[in-house]
Amino acid sequence: MFTIMKKQKIPKETIKRLPLYYRCLNRLVVLGKHTLSSTELSEHLGIKPTQIRKDLSYFGDFGTRGVGYDLRRLIDEIELILNLDRTWNIAIAGVSNIGCTIIDLLDFERSGFNLVAAFDSHPNVIGNTVYGIEVQDINNLEGCDLENPIDIGIISVQATNAREIARCLVDRGVRGIINFAPTLLNLSEEIEVVQMDLTSELGWLVFYLGNQ
Amino acid sequence: MFTIMKKQKIPKETIKRLPLYYRCLNRLVVLGKHTLSSTELSEHLGIKPTQIRKDLSYFGDFGTRGVGYDLRRLIDEIELILNLDRTWNIAIAGVSNIGCTIIDLLDFERSGFNLVAAFDSHPNVIGNTVYGIEVQDINNLEGCDLENPIDIGIISVQATNAREIARCLVDRGVRGIINFAPTLLNLSEEIEVVQMDLTSELGWLVFYLGNQ
Repeated sequence: MFTIMKKQKIPKETIKRLPLYYRCLNRLVVLGKHTLSSTELSEHLGIKPTQIRKDLSYFGDFGTRGVGYDLRRLIDEIELILNLDRTWNIAIAGVSNIGCTIIDLLDFERSGFNLVAAFDSHPNVIGNTVYGIEVQDINNLEGCDLENPIDIGIISVQATNAREIARCLVDRGVRGIINFAPTLLNLSEEIEVVQMDLTSELGWLVFYLGNQ
Repeated sequence: MFTIMKKQKIPKETIKRLPLYYRCLNRLVVLGKHTLSSTELSEHLGIKPTQIRKDLSYFGDFGTRGVGYDLRRLIDEIELILNLDRTWNIAIAGVSNIGCTIIDLLDFERSGFNLVAAFDSHPNVIGNTVYGIEVQDINNLEGCDLENPIDIGIISVQATNAREIARCLVDRGVRGIINFAPTLLNLSEEIEVVQMDLTSELGWLVFYLGNQ
């Protein structure tokens, strides 16, 4: 059923909530739960039951009236929907400033994410090991040998270097980038860029709060 | 002119680009520039000239044909638009994982942001000083004395604690939150929450890449 449903237009916001569902459901399964109603799920997730039912209905009918959702089946389906049934190779450019990022990343890694390369420009950081990966000099990003191709790049370098590094990553076959640097990367439209820039978000927040 | 323009509906994406303009313009002024065309600005920003002209036209007419934009005036106007002409007090909950965040924050701090409190739960971190602020035990968030009220909270704690901490921040008068924890905060609609969750963004990215 899923393959058919998949082709319809699913809102981006729904897709972005699925990892939150996924993480919560896995925690509940570890705690010994097998089925749960949307109301019970709502309490764990902080998302309204109507929203949960609507989100999950895009992908087929996972719930049984009076019984609730089969957690294990729901987890498997979300894995399939999000393409977590394959491995995604990740490279990080800028290890020094990435603390918060790496921790989340590793939490997610169990679900098919695989750190394959890390780069930095700081002499004190180059050569260190992060999560089993030796940090390489970012100046070698273009030419260095890698055992695995990179699918996704995470950029956490200074604004002035971010665009150049993004171009190198794309030349190495990267198709998706998460950019923490406060600059726009200006890449071709085939590359999906997620902008996670605190400066922009703070700017938005004070615009909004000041004009309330 | 600006006060009148302000009331019309300005796209959120335009507001979010203003901090990027602001940062770039300040850098150019330091380099001795006084005026710049939208085409020249475009080269620095990686944003199309038509987009720059459109973004800035929401706030009045800053450019002179054949001369370009008066950078100093543009900086002053963006400060006014984003409400950076006042001070915004920021508290951070979760200092351990915030490396990348703090660095950006401080870059922006020159423009009216002021770190007034920092909290963490880790015994090794409590009592340390970050940017002149002593890190306090997060369990004291509810009752501790603060010299200044907090306008904005940045949450960078584990998912399971984030909602509770958000509620404490709101009780202390916070009206805007940037949340790095991979959970939804479920606060009243009067509180503006910016969700910056790598898990969700990675989820979106692999959904998109896998279905291309």
